[in-house]
Amino acid sequence: MQLDITHLALEYENKDPQEILKLALDKFDRISISFSGAEDVILIDMASKIKADFNVFSIDTGRLHPETYQLLDQVREHYGIPLEIVFPESSEVETLVKEKGLFSFYRDGHQECCGIRKVRPLRRKLATLDAWITGQRKDQSPSTRATIPVVQIDAGFSTSNHKIVKFNPLANWSSAQVWQYIVVNKVPYNTLHTKGFISIGCEPCTRTVLPNQHEREARWWWEEAVDKECGFHKANLVRNESGVAR
Amino acid sequence: MQLDITHLALEYENKDPQEILKLALDKFDRISISFSGAEDVILIDMASKIKADFNVFSIDTGRLHPETYQLLDQVREHYGIPLEIVFPESSEVETLVKEKGLFSFYRDGHQECCGIRKVRPLRRKLATLDAWITGQRKDQSPSTRATIPVVQIDAGFSTSNHKIVKFNPLANWSSAQVWQYIVVNKVPYNTLHTKGFISIGCEPCTRTVLPNQHEREARWWWEEAVDKECGFHKANLVRNESGVAR
Amino acid sequence: MQLDITHLALEYENKDPQEILKLALDKFDRISISFSGAEDVILIDMASKIKADFNVFSIDTGRLHPETYQLLDQVREHYGIPLEIVFPESSEVETLVKEKGLFSFYRDGHQECCGIRKVRPLRRKLATLDAWITGQRKDQSPSTRATIPVVQIDAGFSTSNHKIVKFNPLANWSSAQVWQYIVVNKVPYNTLHTKGFISIGCEPCTRTVLPNQHEREARWWWEEAVDKECGFHKANLVRNESGVAR
Amino acid sequence: MQLDITHLALEYENKDPQEILKLALDKFDRISISFSGAEDVILIDMASKIKADFNVFSIDTGRLHPETYQLLDQVREHYGIPLEIVFPESSEVETLVKEKGLFSFYRDGHQECCGIRKVRPLRRKLATLDAWITGQRKDQSPSTRATIPVVQIDAGFSTSNHKIVKFNPLANWSSAQVWQYIVVNKVPYNTLHTKGFISIGCEPCTRTVLPNQHEREARWWWEEAVDKECGFHKANLVRNESGVAR
Repeated sequence: MQLDITHLALEYENKDPQEILKLALDKFDRISISFSGAEDVILIDMASKIKADFNVFSIDTGRLHPETYQLLDQVREHYGIPLEIVFPESSEVETLVKEKGLFSFYRDGHQECCGIRKVRPLRRKLATLDAWITGQRKDQSPSTRATIPVVQIDAGFSTSNHKIVKFNPLANWSSAQVWQYIVVNKVPYNTLHTKGFISIGCEPCTRTVLPNQHEREARWWWEEAVDKECGFHKANLVRNESGVAR
Repeated sequence: MQLDITHLALEYENKDPQEILKLALDKFDRISISFSGAEDVILIDMASKIKADFNVFSIDTGRLHPETYQLLDQVREHYGIPLEIVFPESSEVETLVKEKGLFSFYRDGHQECCGIRKVRPLRRKLATLDAWITGQRKDQSPSTRATIPVVQIDAGFSTSNHKIVKFNPLANWSSAQVWQYIVVNKVPYNTLHTKGFISIGCEPCTRTVLPNQHEREARWWWEEAVDKECGFHKANLVRNESGVAR
Repeated sequence: MQLDITHLALEYENKDPQEILKLALDKFDRISISFSGAEDVILIDMASKIKADFNVFSIDTGRLHPETYQLLDQVREHYGIPLEIVFPESSEVETLVKEKGLFSFYRDGHQECCGIRKVRPLRRKLATLDAWITGQRKDQSPSTRATIPVVQIDAGFSTSNHKIVKFNPLANWSSAQVWQYIVVNKVPYNTLHTKGFISIGCEPCTRTVLPNQHEREARWWWEEAVDKECGFHKANLVRNESGVAR
Repeated sequence: MQLDITHLALEYENKDPQEILKLALDKFDRISISFSGAEDVILIDMASKIKADFNVFSIDTGRLHPETYQLLDQVREHYGIPLEIVFPESSEVETLVKEKGLFSFYRDGHQECCGIRKVRPLRRKLATLDAWITGQRKDQSPSTRATIPVVQIDAGFSTSNHKIVKFNPLANWSSAQVWQYIVVNKVPYNTLHTKGFISIGCEPCTRTVLPNQHEREARWWWEEAVDKECGFHKANLVRNESGVAR
C-alpha cells in the first residue's frame, strides 16, 4: 500500500479522533489498537461505533496494577472483543531479576526493564502489523509529545523492510476532552482513576499526583530527565534530539 | 472600629493574598483563621510569615477523615500554634442520630447535619470574634463563589448588634496557584490529596473526583442543586438568590 | 429490685449467652445493650430473637472509623431499632485539644482522652439505667478479663445511691464461637474485620494484628502496661489490683 | 545418591525445622528453597543461619500482589542472596488470555491458569534440581496437608528418570509457631499480613479472612472442593485419593 503519510497528517490534523480512527481502520487490515488500560479506552469505544470487528492488544508487563487487569477484562466483556495480550519472554525477565532484583529501575533507570517487559514484546507484536493506533496526546508531555502528528511513520519500530504506520487519533485532544467523552459515553474506566491516578503504567513506576500537578509527574518520578518517555514512543525522543520537531 | 469594607474590597481586589492577610491581621485583634484541614493550610503558612502570634480554629464535626485529624495536629506542631477546635453540642448530635441515624443527609439533604455539626459551632465561635479569615476561592464553585470579594461583611453570621467581617485572601487565586504555593513552600498537606481528593469536608460527604472533574463534584454529590454551598458560606447563596451578585 | 447477683452469676455461669441475655432483659426495664461497633453486634442479633423491643446505645467518641459509623447505621436499619448515640461534651473536647492537640494519648496515655470521650459519656448514660449489657469476653484479655462473671455489680459505675448491674453474656464464649455465630446467622459485621482488624475501638487507638497475634495487641500498643483496659471496664483493673480475682 | 527417604522421614519426624533444613542442605547440592512470598520466609532466615550459600527460587506468575514483589526484593537485600524468579512462558499466557481472558479461573477453575503460570514453570525449574524445600505445613489444610511428612519423594514432579526429593521442614509447626519465629527473629514479612491476609498466593486468587476463619478459606474460595490444593503440591491430592494417607 502506498500512502503519503505526511500528506495525510496535514489533511487530518484538524479532524475528529473518530475520523482519524476510521481512516486508520479503512486503510489497513493488519492494524490494531494498543490499549494500555488507562484512558485510551476511548479508542475502543470509538472503534466499536465504526465497525464490529477490530483488533486490540495490550502489553502485559507482568507488573500491572490489579485494577488494570480488571479493566482489561471488563473491556473485553463490555465490547465483546478478544483481548490480545503480549507477554515478556520468560528467559529475559528471569535473567534481569536474577542479576538485579525486581526494582532495578529505581537505581539505574527504567529503560532496561521497559526494554524487556514493554519494548521487545511490542516489537514482536508490531512485526505482525502494518499499522497501530495509540492514545498518545500532545498534552500528556510538554517536552516529548507537544508536536506528535495524528499519523506518522513510526521511526522507532519500522525497519528497512517493513514500514509501520502509527496513528494518534487523540493527539489534539486534551485530557478534559477525553474525560468528558468517558463520562458522556459511559465508557468503562480504570478504578485507579478514582484513587488519584491520572497516567497509568506499571505498578511500581506509577504514582498518584497532587491536585493540579501535571500527569507526567506520575511516571518515573525518580529520574531527572525532562524528556521522560515511554519505550512505546521512543521516536518522540529521537525527534526531539534532532531538534527538528521542537 | 469603623472600616469601609466596600472600599477595602475594591482597594485590595488585585492584591496578593499575603497583603490581604496582613491587612486583616493588622486591623483586627479578635480575628482568627478558619482552617478546614484542606489546602487552606496555606493561610497558616502565610500568616506565620507575617507575625508570630495569630489564631486558628477548626470545626471538628466529629466526622472528619482520620487523615484530616492528622493534618490538624501536624500543622499545630509544624507551626507551633495552639489548635482551637470547635465541637458540636452533644445533645444536638444525640437527638439527630436518635431520630434519623448517622447518614440522614443522604436522604433529606446535608443542611440539617451541617447545621448541627458545622454551622452552630461556627456561630458560637464567631460570636467571640470581630473578623474571620477563610480559604474560599472563586474557582471552587462557578455557581456560588464566582463573585466573592476579598473582604466582606459576613451577611450570614453578623447580627444587628455584632458585625462580622470575613476576609477571603485567596478569592482570586486558582487551585493551580494554591498548589504551586504548597509545593514551593513545602507546606504540610492533607494526605488525602495524594489519594484523589481535591475538596475535603466531612468523610461521608466527600469523595474523590475523576481527572479533570471539577472539585465541586466531590461534595454532596447526591444532591441535585447547582448551587451547593457549605454552611460556612451560606451568604454566598443569599447573594445569588437576590440576583445581584451573579 | 432485690437480686442476688452473686447467686445469679453462679447459677448462669454455664448457660448460653441467649439465656443470660433473656434473664437480663426480663429482670430490668431500664437496661440497654452497649454496642461498640465490633463483634458485640451478636448481642443485638440475639436480643432481636428474644423480644421486639430492646435498647441499644453506642458511645460515639468522635474518633471512630468511618467503617464503624457505617456498621452502626447498618445495624439500625437491619434490625429496625433506634440507634442511641452518646456524644462527648463539646467543652471538654475543646479544652483537651486546645491544651494538648488531637493525639495526646500517644504521649501521656489513653486515660485522659478516654475519660472525656468514652467514660464520662458512659457515666452520663448509665445514670439513666439500672443495668447494662456488654460484649466483654474472658478470652479478650488474659490479664484483665480472665475472670469476668456473666453478671456482676458494676463496681466502676455504681454509686452509693445507685447500683448498676452489668451483664456479660459472652463472657465464656471464645472469639471462634462469636465468629461462627456471625457467619451462621448472617449478622452484619464491621468491614474492618475484612481488613485485618479484630478488636475495634477509636481509629487512632486501634491497629491490625498479624496472624496469630492476640487481639489485645491491637489496642493502645504504645503503652507498656500488661493490664491495659478500656475505661468501660475499669472495674476489671480494680479487681486485679486487689489480687482477689486473679 | 541413595537415600532411604522413608527412613529419613521417620527419623526426622519430631526434629526441629532447622535440623530438617540442615539435613536437606547437607545431603543435596542441587537443592533450592521454594519461596512464595508469604510466611515461608522463615525458611530463608533459618537457612541463612546454617550456611552462607544456599539457593532460593520463586515462581513469579505475573499476577502477584505488589506487596509480594516488594517482599521478594526486600528478602534479596536483607539476606544478600540472589533472587531466582521463574516466569511463565509468554506464548502459553498469551494463548490462554486470548481465548478466555484474564480471569477464566473464576469460571472454570484455577487448574488451567495455575498450570500455565505456576506448575509448568515449577516443573521446568525442578528439572534442574535433585531436591527442593517447601514451607508446607499440616495445619494449612486439614483435608490435603494433614499427613505430609517432613521429607518425601515428590510423586508429582519426579519422573522415571529423575527422582525429586521434597523437604517440608515446617510440616509439624503451627501457624502460631511460625509467627512467633517471625516476631522473635525480626524476619521481614509481607505487609499483606498487616492487612488481613494470612495465606498469600496470586492477587486475584487470594482474599482476606475474617477473625478465626481458617486460612484455607482465603484461597480459590469460589470453588466447592474440600480438597483445594495448590499445583505445587498436587501429590497431596493423589495421596488423598488413594485413601492411604487419610
